[in-house]
Amino acid sequence: MKIGFAGLGGMGRAMAHNLLQAGYPLTVWNRSPQAAQPLVDAGARLAAQPADLAEVDILITMLANDAALEQVVVESGLLAQMRPGAAHVNMATISVALAQRLAELHQQHSIGYLAAPVLGRPDVAAAGRLNILAAGDPALLARVQPLFDVLGQRTWPFGERPEQANIVKIAANFTLASAIEAMAEGSALVRNHGVSGADYLQMLTGTLFSAPAYQGYGALIAEENYQPAGFKLTLGMKDVGLALEAGGNSHTPMPFASVLKDNFLDAIAHGEGELDWSALANVAARRGGL
Amino acid sequence: MKIGFAGLGGMGRAMAHNLLQAGYPLTVWNRSPQAAQPLVDAGARLAAQPADLAEVDILITMLANDAALEQVVVESGLLAQMRPGAAHVNMATISVALAQRLAELHQQHSIGYLAAPVLGRPDVAAAGRLNILAAGDPALLARVQPLFDVLGQRTWPFGERPEQANIVKIAANFTLASAIEAMAEGSALVRNHGVSGADYLQMLTGTLFSAPAYQGYGALIAEENYQPAGFKLTLGMKDVGLALEAGGNSHTPMPFASVLKDNFLDAIAHGEGELDWSALANVAARRGGL
Amino acid sequence: MKIGFAGLGGMGRAMAHNLLQAGYPLTVWNRSPQAAQPLVDAGARLAAQPADLAEVDILITMLANDAALEQVVVESGLLAQMRPGAAHVNMATISVALAQRLAELHQQHSIGYLAAPVLGRPDVAAAGRLNILAAGDPALLARVQPLFDVLGQRTWPFGERPEQANIVKIAANFTLASAIEAMAEGSALVRNHGVSGADYLQMLTGTLFSAPAYQGYGALIAEENYQPAGFKLTLGMKDVGLALEAGGNSHTPMPFASVLKDNFLDAIAHGEGELDWSALANVAARRGGL
Amino acid sequence: MKIGFAGLGGMGRAMAHNLLQAGYPLTVWNRSPQAAQPLVDAGARLAAQPADLAEVDILITMLANDAALEQVVVESGLLAQMRPGAAHVNMATISVALAQRLAELHQQHSIGYLAAPVLGRPDVAAAGRLNILAAGDPALLARVQPLFDVLGQRTWPFGERPEQANIVKIAANFTLASAIEAMAEGSALVRNHGVSGADYLQMLTGTLFSAPAYQGYGALIAEENYQPAGFKLTLGMKDVGLALEAGGNSHTPMPFASVLKDNFLDAIAHGEGELDWSALANVAARRGGL
Repeated sequence: MKIGFAGLGGMGRAMAHNLLQAGYPLTVWNRSPQAAQPLVDAGARLAAQPADLAEVDILITMLANDAALEQVVVESGLLAQMRPGAAHVNMATISVALAQRLAELHQQHSIGYLAAPVLGRPDVAAAGRLNILAAGDPALLARVQPLFDVLGQRTWPFGERPEQANIVKIAANFTLASAIEAMAEGSALVRNHGVSGADYLQMLTGTLFSAPAYQGYGALIAEENYQPAGFKLTLGMKDVGLALEAGGNSHTPMPFASVLKDNFLDAIAHGEGELDWSALANVAARRGGL
Repeated sequence: MKIGFAGLGGMGRAMAHNLLQAGYPLTVWNRSPQAAQPLVDAGARLAAQPADLAEVDILITMLANDAALEQVVVESGLLAQMRPGAAHVNMATISVALAQRLAELHQQHSIGYLAAPVLGRPDVAAAGRLNILAAGDPALLARVQPLFDVLGQRTWPFGERPEQANIVKIAANFTLASAIEAMAEGSALVRNHGVSGADYLQMLTGTLFSAPAYQGYGALIAEENYQPAGFKLTLGMKDVGLALEAGGNSHTPMPFASVLKDNFLDAIAHGEGELDWSALANVAARRGGL
Repeated sequence: MKIGFAGLGGMGRAMAHNLLQAGYPLTVWNRSPQAAQPLVDAGARLAAQPADLAEVDILITMLANDAALEQVVVESGLLAQMRPGAAHVNMATISVALAQRLAELHQQHSIGYLAAPVLGRPDVAAAGRLNILAAGDPALLARVQPLFDVLGQRTWPFGERPEQANIVKIAANFTLASAIEAMAEGSALVRNHGVSGADYLQMLTGTLFSAPAYQGYGALIAEENYQPAGFKLTLGMKDVGLALEAGGNSHTPMPFASVLKDNFLDAIAHGEGELDWSALANVAARRGGL
Repeated sequence: MKIGFAGLGGMGRAMAHNLLQAGYPLTVWNRSPQAAQPLVDAGARLAAQPADLAEVDILITMLANDAALEQVVVESGLLAQMRPGAAHVNMATISVALAQRLAELHQQHSIGYLAAPVLGRPDVAAAGRLNILAAGDPALLARVQPLFDVLGQRTWPFGERPEQANIVKIAANFTLASAIEAMAEGSALVRNHGVSGADYLQMLTGTLFSAPAYQGYGALIAEENYQPAGFKLTLGMKDVGLALEAGGNSHTPMPFASVLKDNFLDAIAHGEGELDWSALANVAARRGGL
């Protein structure tokens, strides 16, 4: 089984490396080829351009956004040149609309298509401990499961239409942003009563909210430690935008997501777009006169 | 050290029992005396009326709301009859405004006053595993710490003004409500894309949000299991109202709390006020046409 | 028919003057008696304290808020001393809750009670051109209609329970605040596209929105002319708070009112509480980076 | 000066007719040619396809949305075939993003481009009483002013970049939607206190809000008269979506617009998308248990 891997950012690099380590023959491509060098050194083949991945059995993509994915897979001619029976597994977060369009397009080319976005940061990817949210043809999912077993600790199936995994990932990211905002508003409230925000967050994340999401972001907010960004605020707004877009198309009001978008815009208008998205807490603090 | 305990609901009963078990001489009072019987059987003295608690060294109250607390402690004459040097520890959730008024009033009567609201349901109280959020005079806190060690697993100090513990508790409850709403909106979104809400919530609370708050309420929402209520929706709205009131008085905008209040009202207008407050999820579902 | 008038602010002074001009024997009271002098010079009797108004047939009050009204009418002993068959017409904006309590209290004392809040600024009051929103016993309304004909251009009846006029006034003020916010957000949007906010507002209030509410506040926003305040921002927040309180008690979600309250708080936290309430526009501008 | 006119819906038909009456030689095109027949009968030439309009000096478009405009002007080849020096005046509401793209494209083809969306319904268009919001090259604006004088009562210039007129139109429509929502929430509030919504709205639109926008929609809401739709709710949501999109791109938080979008979605999820957009009032009523 020949594997192609496009998109070697922090996440993709770690994932590709694990596949290589597990013995899979791997061809890799990245917009800037330098990022591919360590993989090439470890035995991967380098594709000069996306279309050079057309010979693989399974193409995995981990690209930055909708536009990059469309360019690399569709506009480059790669999809049109893949062999019938081959499959594409997109593991990045994309919009529901693009997921639907890609599902159709792959079907027209007789190429399998699976959406499998992941939960976890680069260190989790490196440890092969990702949670993989998967949707698409169950037979294809069974076929790539061995790869997922290399990449992640668990695969969560969500349906036969690829966009179903994307919507789950989008909803999960919305929930993260909501957790940040709730910590932000609560901190502003207690600080306006003379209580230390750090004390408050430490208690919260040590009791009812002793979950990774709260502990990680709670510490960043307590320390106002927003640089360097683990996940940029502008990307957070993009993901909340995906939730609102999907909510709009499916007629699902999401008032929390609406508040989040307005607050992300407030942050960006105040020059904070490049900070970590937990800097959303600055908005509640600023509005509260802190 | 003679202890008085007023308010023997599910929480108060369990807490009073633990104090009795630990060997403290206890006088108890409850609006309906039946609730006191098991404690009396176990050795507690029964106060016929609140003022009969005036002889205690430490008065602990765990009453339903602001009005009940004012009535039992102030209007009954209890506070006026307590002995200088005695102290009152209020462990229920009350408004910041009342906390401030009580602090003044106790000072006028030379009675110590500590706010010590708790995190935990009745089963946690019974196990002596509450988290106690405390604020007030540090000397007084040190004096009652042995009692807190009986009642809880940990005491979190938040300042010298009693209302500082109340605001922390109010903020924590707001954060719980926000978690429920975020699960509700996310579930409505994925369900409108054909994904099972239960599958979604199971994944969420098994990965990023593996915290008690999410797991407990996530299961209730997944099963639409809102009766009998662990915590009534009307009480949830009351607590979010306390957050908005405190935010209003301290000039802290809280847009998530505002959304929550509007959604609680929607639920109550639809006859769901007596359900568990996680039934807030019905609002997002209904608005999304589910 | 002897008339008593309590509350001689900008509005009350103008209204009392018109009644005097129309030939009604008038006794007036104001917290600071200087404000009453011009009326005394014009023939009114001065009451030294509220209870001195107890002899009148019709008591009209135009006091600043709930607390002032309770103090002057109830706590002063005035209501208890009024003669059975006399009536009280409250023309100020008060909460629905107080309106209900006062209706009961007046009934207990066999004193008529009418709520009749007004639309119009002091210049409109001086011209006798107010719009009067009235609710209460229709027979009483008929009895005081001659007075209303002196004070206003039209009386709008809204029901037999006094609070029904109060809720209409509260809803009208909420609608004004909403108009200000809509102009604020629209202005911020066009300004962020290089369009003059003044040009935009001039067009808007010269076409679809050629109503007094938009033209008056539109001009203030266009010129950022918020001092001196015609109606203070803190009072605007109080009135939106009355809408939210009434919405809360009647289970009516009001998401626009919630947004308004958060934005009023933002303005107050930024030191703008003493400006005219149209300074709410500063919030949208500031949040949009303007 | 030869005029081309594409898009003969209710608005376009009335506008084209006025130009014809004023003596301008007119070539018209519409997707379904039947709509053009009355104009042809009155002396207009019929274009069989968009590209047949390429010979005109001034092309006026009044098409349904972004997609229709792109198709008719760009994808049909029309723009590419127009003669240098000719100009295109787009009088429909489109997105800021498309307005910017079209401005560039026209410049590349040396074709003038003006945005001139209008305020007014078909009857106002028929009377030649539109308000025209214009932006683009001032020399071009001066050149087409005689046409605008035929179509409208006044031209409001908003800048030299065409999208500046589009953003003003988008902001004006957002303000209309906000007026509807404010009337909806206020009505729900007073109705929940036993006051007739019709009485309330009649008072409101007879006093402070005696503007066309409030009077027209106020009457529809009072009578719950949402069919046939003057302007469909789905189109209202599209326009609020344009405001949110422009707000998003320019970093302008618009919390009222966010509330509006969520409420439009609620209405559509309840099967009300084809009603008049003032049916937005159903959402506030339904949420308030009415």
